[in-house]
Amino acid sequence: MSEQNVMEIQVVENVKKINDEVADLNRASLNRHGVLCVNLMGSPGCGKTTLLEDTLKKLSGAMTVGVLTGDLATTRDARRLAHYTDQVAQINTGRACHLEANQIRKGFDLLDLAALDLLIIENVGNLICPVSWDLGQHARVGMFSVTEGDDKPAKHPYIVLASDLVLLNKVDLLPYVTFDSDRFYADLRSIRDDLEVIQTSAISGEGLDKWVSWIRSLRDI
Amino acid sequence: MSEQNVMEIQVVENVKKINDEVADLNRASLNRHGVLCVNLMGSPGCGKTTLLEDTLKKLSGAMTVGVLTGDLATTRDARRLAHYTDQVAQINTGRACHLEANQIRKGFDLLDLAALDLLIIENVGNLICPVSWDLGQHARVGMFSVTEGDDKPAKHPYIVLASDLVLLNKVDLLPYVTFDSDRFYADLRSIRDDLEVIQTSAISGEGLDKWVSWIRSLRDI
Repeated sequence: MSEQNVMEIQVVENVKKINDEVADLNRASLNRHGVLCVNLMGSPGCGKTTLLEDTLKKLSGAMTVGVLTGDLATTRDARRLAHYTDQVAQINTGRACHLEANQIRKGFDLLDLAALDLLIIENVGNLICPVSWDLGQHARVGMFSVTEGDDKPAKHPYIVLASDLVLLNKVDLLPYVTFDSDRFYADLRSIRDDLEVIQTSAISGEGLDKWVSWIRSLRDI
Repeated sequence: MSEQNVMEIQVVENVKKINDEVADLNRASLNRHGVLCVNLMGSPGCGKTTLLEDTLKKLSGAMTVGVLTGDLATTRDARRLAHYTDQVAQINTGRACHLEANQIRKGFDLLDLAALDLLIIENVGNLICPVSWDLGQHARVGMFSVTEGDDKPAKHPYIVLASDLVLLNKVDLLPYVTFDSDRFYADLRSIRDDLEVIQTSAISGEGLDKWVSWIRSLRDI
């Protein structure tokens, strides 16, 4: 291995180590304020923001929810979610394909953590790198949509391995797309046979109550 | 700026510089063999592999086409494409979210470059990092699908800036999804008003001849 490679690996390890330390600080801050934190990860366009709009509507009155939403550019997601909570901040990552713990730490300053019951982090649309970066969350949710095809668990095993729950979204479109549910579940189960999956649709409303109950059940742990 | 940060940035710059040098070597090899090379980039599940199946069918007899296809895990895409060409190799990237030039260089050894007219690189499903890594291609194609929503050009401007052509795929699903075409094109044009867009569908066949003509026109440049 060349000197260049050794240095590169060392730097990446150092950056990851610092990230994990900041993630632990984030978790401590969240715990001190009694805030549950969920890190939502999925492809671009799998429906994360639309799901969060519905989630905020359903939790309104029951829980005070904040959102930190990551994107390369624009504040569109934050503006969409601002209709349902005033505790929302956009984190623009530029060319970076995932959120890191220090960005979440800075995001805390934009919210009133003491007033929150739940903080949802909407990660950058990407099935790969977000999985490798601890943000200080209590639970990770991996999101697929049926329009992406049934092969995504097999092709993206790391998000399956890392998630506490998988959402399979846009199930209202099943009649119009080629999607072999048996294959999807067989691949997923071959990676993690214990993993809960909730099928959701913002259009039909399927699974939204189940998803919200899942979040609420985390509060009781 | 801390010493750690300076070292990190230097290492990233060194890695990118080495990548660009290898990409230039790749381009020289391709040119020597008279092989046109297209780098196809898009979200997980936007339809890259299905489009390539149709592309290989349509170009059969007219051009000898090879494919290097990138994924975290599995050889599923390569196996699908092997029905249409024997010049196909899968590059598994592990946890890496994009292909790099040295992986393409190694991929050349798995193909008979001298026998090819066209090499298509199917990048890892990701709208972000593939854009930043030159592989030695002659043209880059950015692919969106209507199921991802009309906001993707605005939220992913770098792939729009870097692409020589944009494909808007799965247009057969337009009746079933919320997708404001005017907004999609307005955002895209605000980033690049000269960029050609071809709407495609593997189901209806829309745009596939146009796409194949676009590839063939590159050979004439």
